[in-house]
Amino acid sequence: MVKVNRKANAAILIIGNEILSGRTQDVNVSFLSKWLNDHGVRVCEVRIIEDKESSIVKNIKELKNKFKYIFTTGGIGPTHDDITAKSIAKAFNVKYNYHKEAYKILEEYYTAKKFSDGRKKMAKMPAGSKLIYNPSSGAPGFILKNVYCLPGVPSILKSMIHGLKYKIAGGSKILSETITIQTVESEIAKSLEKVQNRFKDVEIGSYPFFRLGRIGVSIVMRSTNKNRIDECSKQIVDFIKKRKIEIVER
Amino acid sequence: MVKVNRKANAAILIIGNEILSGRTQDVNVSFLSKWLNDHGVRVCEVRIIEDKESSIVKNIKELKNKFKYIFTTGGIGPTHDDITAKSIAKAFNVKYNYHKEAYKILEEYYTAKKFSDGRKKMAKMPAGSKLIYNPSSGAPGFILKNVYCLPGVPSILKSMIHGLKYKIAGGSKILSETITIQTVESEIAKSLEKVQNRFKDVEIGSYPFFRLGRIGVSIVMRSTNKNRIDECSKQIVDFIKKRKIEIVER
Repeated sequence: MVKVNRKANAAILIIGNEILSGRTQDVNVSFLSKWLNDHGVRVCEVRIIEDKESSIVKNIKELKNKFKYIFTTGGIGPTHDDITAKSIAKAFNVKYNYHKEAYKILEEYYTAKKFSDGRKKMAKMPAGSKLIYNPSSGAPGFILKNVYCLPGVPSILKSMIHGLKYKIAGGSKILSETITIQTVESEIAKSLEKVQNRFKDVEIGSYPFFRLGRIGVSIVMRSTNKNRIDECSKQIVDFIKKRKIEIVER
Repeated sequence: MVKVNRKANAAILIIGNEILSGRTQDVNVSFLSKWLNDHGVRVCEVRIIEDKESSIVKNIKELKNKFKYIFTTGGIGPTHDDITAKSIAKAFNVKYNYHKEAYKILEEYYTAKKFSDGRKKMAKMPAGSKLIYNPSSGAPGFILKNVYCLPGVPSILKSMIHGLKYKIAGGSKILSETITIQTVESEIAKSLEKVQNRFKDVEIGSYPFFRLGRIGVSIVMRSTNKNRIDECSKQIVDFIKKRKIEIVER
């Protein structure tokens, strides 16, 4: 419902059995979503899939035509289960081979140590890829058309994201405001729906929480238009005050 | 690659703009994946989608035919953005109306307070749904065919999951063993691939980490066959010891 440039949208594809097995708690989705949001790109879908060539190929083929940007995480390391680059080459039907600059970067990075086959593998990319530099650990990520491939290790991913700042053309930044109140959702459902019906261009979300023995609801308004959020917020605060519900945070 | 009953698989569908915007860190995927894994069900795909009827309908239609179980979280509360039940009714082309038992449960739960329209909405479900009882906050989840609908609030979801124990027919439990070593992935890539090629029925994952200033790799073996994990583990430990790499944890 938020009126944004619908073209400035994205999907995130998390590649990794360790997330699907529950062994590893993913934190890349929330980091990437916030970063993209700050750059005016709305994340519309996330998929978490297995380290399996057929799954990666199928999902990349589907998503690349559906969204402006696709961000992948995981599977670009040196081991046998790192098959993202090869699979993406397949999805785009391009060759998978050494990327000259990536090879040079890795060769220099591992200069004192052995530039082994595993390490060389990290220089193999789909033909036509542009590099995403890695200030943490040498091995670059890559961009092929609208697909941006990053590593799965959160600290390395974070160190690489800043290099993408000028490679993303977002729409207007999506602004948000949150009002946290002490009540249960069903107490405010009707009034909130009325406000939502009046503000079609503001997306209103209602999120109950139960923490530290406290029950509450966070009402989140999102829009690219600050004035509309302000007006919407005013109407919500009005009915909350009228009902003598405590505002915990605003 | 793990040899399990491929039919005992599942997809998780997380419904909620708050996860896609990065505002809320999802923790339900890892909880549900572990729980399903313990019950012999392998989670093969996760999707996180918007609170949008067309998205929910499309994804449910796709996933319900592809996997044995679909677990959804979110969107079953009383507010305007809670549209999961209605959308699932649409995906299955069944009526969406009051579920008698759910209505009774909620009527009793809210006995002292007002049984408002918002609260009544939580008793509306797709025709033919079976209930998932909620020991925390009254409002039940529901099962329609192979789709299991749970709330998004993690503490409530957790309190409801135990009721599903006998409603899931899993295959053999997927066992795992982890060896954590102090090295970088590229040092072990080749040897690990050789072991993987010898053990097609054990899925070997290699996960680098950088924490507390320490660099390391966790090697995770997964299989339904304990003997094969033991044999595989032995071969990995053999090459690790030969290379004088420190085992941090096993």
